[in-house]
Amino acid sequence: MSTALHTDRYELTMLDAALRDGTADRHCVFELFGRRLPGGRRFGVVAGTGRLLSLIQDFRFGDDELRFLRDERVVDAATLDFLEGYRFGGSITGYREGELYFPGSPILTVEGSFAEAVILETLALSVLNHDSAIATAAARMAIAAGERPLSEMGSRRAGEHSAVAAARAAYIVGFAATSNLEAGRTWSIPTMGTAAHAWTLLHDTEEAAFRAQIDALGVDTTLLIDTYDIHEGVATAVRVAGTSLGGVRIDSGDLPIVAGQVRAQLDELGAAKTRITVTSDLDEFAIASLAASPVDSYGVGTSVVTGSGYPTAGMVYKLVARQDAAGSWVGVEKASVDKASKGGRKAAFRTLDQGTATSELIVVSDGFEELDTVATHPDARALHVPLVVAGEPDAAYLGREGVTAARAHHSRVLEELPVRALALSRSDPAIPTVFVERDG
Amino acid sequence: MSTALHTDRYELTMLDAALRDGTADRHCVFELFGRRLPGGRRFGVVAGTGRLLSLIQDFRFGDDELRFLRDERVVDAATLDFLEGYRFGGSITGYREGELYFPGSPILTVEGSFAEAVILETLALSVLNHDSAIATAAARMAIAAGERPLSEMGSRRAGEHSAVAAARAAYIVGFAATSNLEAGRTWSIPTMGTAAHAWTLLHDTEEAAFRAQIDALGVDTTLLIDTYDIHEGVATAVRVAGTSLGGVRIDSGDLPIVAGQVRAQLDELGAAKTRITVTSDLDEFAIASLAASPVDSYGVGTSVVTGSGYPTAGMVYKLVARQDAAGSWVGVEKASVDKASKGGRKAAFRTLDQGTATSELIVVSDGFEELDTVATHPDARALHVPLVVAGEPDAAYLGREGVTAARAHHSRVLEELPVRALALSRSDPAIPTVFVERDG
Repeated sequence: MSTALHTDRYELTMLDAALRDGTADRHCVFELFGRRLPGGRRFGVVAGTGRLLSLIQDFRFGDDELRFLRDERVVDAATLDFLEGYRFGGSITGYREGELYFPGSPILTVEGSFAEAVILETLALSVLNHDSAIATAAARMAIAAGERPLSEMGSRRAGEHSAVAAARAAYIVGFAATSNLEAGRTWSIPTMGTAAHAWTLLHDTEEAAFRAQIDALGVDTTLLIDTYDIHEGVATAVRVAGTSLGGVRIDSGDLPIVAGQVRAQLDELGAAKTRITVTSDLDEFAIASLAASPVDSYGVGTSVVTGSGYPTAGMVYKLVARQDAAGSWVGVEKASVDKASKGGRKAAFRTLDQGTATSELIVVSDGFEELDTVATHPDARALHVPLVVAGEPDAAYLGREGVTAARAHHSRVLEELPVRALALSRSDPAIPTVFVERDG
Repeated sequence: MSTALHTDRYELTMLDAALRDGTADRHCVFELFGRRLPGGRRFGVVAGTGRLLSLIQDFRFGDDELRFLRDERVVDAATLDFLEGYRFGGSITGYREGELYFPGSPILTVEGSFAEAVILETLALSVLNHDSAIATAAARMAIAAGERPLSEMGSRRAGEHSAVAAARAAYIVGFAATSNLEAGRTWSIPTMGTAAHAWTLLHDTEEAAFRAQIDALGVDTTLLIDTYDIHEGVATAVRVAGTSLGGVRIDSGDLPIVAGQVRAQLDELGAAKTRITVTSDLDEFAIASLAASPVDSYGVGTSVVTGSGYPTAGMVYKLVARQDAAGSWVGVEKASVDKASKGGRKAAFRTLDQGTATSELIVVSDGFEELDTVATHPDARALHVPLVVAGEPDAAYLGREGVTAARAHHSRVLEELPVRALALSRSDPAIPTVFVERDG
């Protein structure tokens, strides 16, 4: 499946014009970054990188794509010829998937001719903006949940493909499982599930429904006990399953109170090991408010797949440096009000003091030397890694292996955050972004 | 491409248990509806129906899907056999795509055996919740824009597939075009585009960029004039293109003021017919605030693809009636706090007084007679149409034809709304939902 038309029309008309006036070959550096963190959050999480690298491999113009562009007269014949042979042959360096980011962090640096790099803008932003928005919200939920496992179960509240990407992003920041089977198949994310209210309503009595579920799935299953009356539901559940019942799920009501009542009832009935899962409209704040309640695990739906109020990360893709007609490098930036960009190629480092992050240090240059290798600070971690070299993605970041690596990386770098970064209230970014100019 | 695993795991484990205990064959009625309108909106717009009907046709379990379910032990061998032969053979009646909806509107009624109907829940909700959220927000923007054309250009702020669905939903409620080429190819939605700041920055001067764009695309193109200084940008644009320049785009600044300044400058330069397009972080409120400004068209990005604050419509899919063991019909409903459902099969009518909607009339029955044919009100329009009969979707609602029909239907039914429905402020739904019980 070609991904090439997941692209704004103007990318191709700019290409068309650039092929005519000879600027298409100018070597360019595009940078993908966010100007700010949405919602007064204290850090962002990069996600989608592995998906993007794979989608770029499928960014090819086949007969169908070319026919559409020809029929719609989007570009001229010379541009169609160029697109027919198109394959991104440039390089991409950037933050690893799972890495944290802050305002101005140069999350991806895409280098190549104007022609080959400009047309990746829409796809790159679609993937990174969506997946990073989910990961950033989900990371806060994971922090609020502490040691208690979280499951992502919001597929029904997101577009059918975005749902799979959301499950993947949530897993990278520490969710234990997803309800989405496609995410299980595509990305090997553990899948989970309990039962719906429809299951109870299908049966003539709640008891018949519980019995049938246990016959099919064993006593370790989780019974949904709030279809009618919760107190009766719990009593029926333990009567049918015995005290070895795996779990009960509560999907409504005032959860801190109800969870306490259900725990007391379960204990009284001798079902002390039966777990309580809660799933009703949880977000990071609701999860935090349940910290002292006897809850064993959380299922999160709407809020995680919609980025808990911020469904897009707001990242942009800007030309920051290019060659001029003579082949010299020029840093470029726009001056638009509130939307200024910072010209120049960047390298990024997280400075650390005894293992705790102190700043996002961004070294800027108009030139093109190897900024990444500059030791700018004794206790700094370089944030850029090569993701694509001469058009070839690094396999370590692709597929299921990439997801596993991203999850491990996220867990590691989260440890570097100062404690104040873990609070949920609106605030400034946890560490400042510091730009340092370097002569080109 | 099979869509069958875009499904929550519990749908299949409930199926598994139902096949064991014999309830899988019980004839069931599931209803898809929203309990409330998000954000104090006055009406909702149904979108996604045509996509869903087509995705249901691809809801088949092939070798890959069955292997995954077997390897992961999601269901047992008998259930795998059932799924291998699965094809939805029931019926779906519901609101047409583009129709308005209100709290409790029975947007889709899915009838069939429990087995065949329950497993469509996740996919149906993913599609309708996403697409209806976009359409509902976009419809408010279209109302705010009045006669001025709107373009959807938010692909970069939404997952790459959801972006295509969003372009489609926005078109249904009156947007004129999209920037997304895949939406153009798949759904025949007109595509448009101008140029990015990168185009100007690629060139040694703004003038060179404008000249190259005009050489390639002609003087009717739209030049982006805010990369550096807007006043100079306009002067350069007219100097290069002449007074026949098609349009200029403003993507930053205080738009009401800037639009007025640019209009005055263009007029002074003799470019009285040059159009002004504005595109900076617009939502329905910003569009409304530009009503008196000399703006010719709007480009909307983030806010439309994210549902302008409400990225999901919050619809649910509930079992409302089923057969009991003896084959008699029973209306069923859950009692969960704040999430109660209303049992019984429903028919829906929009009552009208001299062509203006006065209520959403929902006739409820525990039984199974043909509610849709009941003339319940002299001036009422029946809202349900057959979408799928014995597993076969009505082709009129599919593909590009379906999009065209939905756009026309939306335009027609919007005329029925009382004037107060068109205001943007938070309020109650524009018309009340009235439930009428009818003996089964």
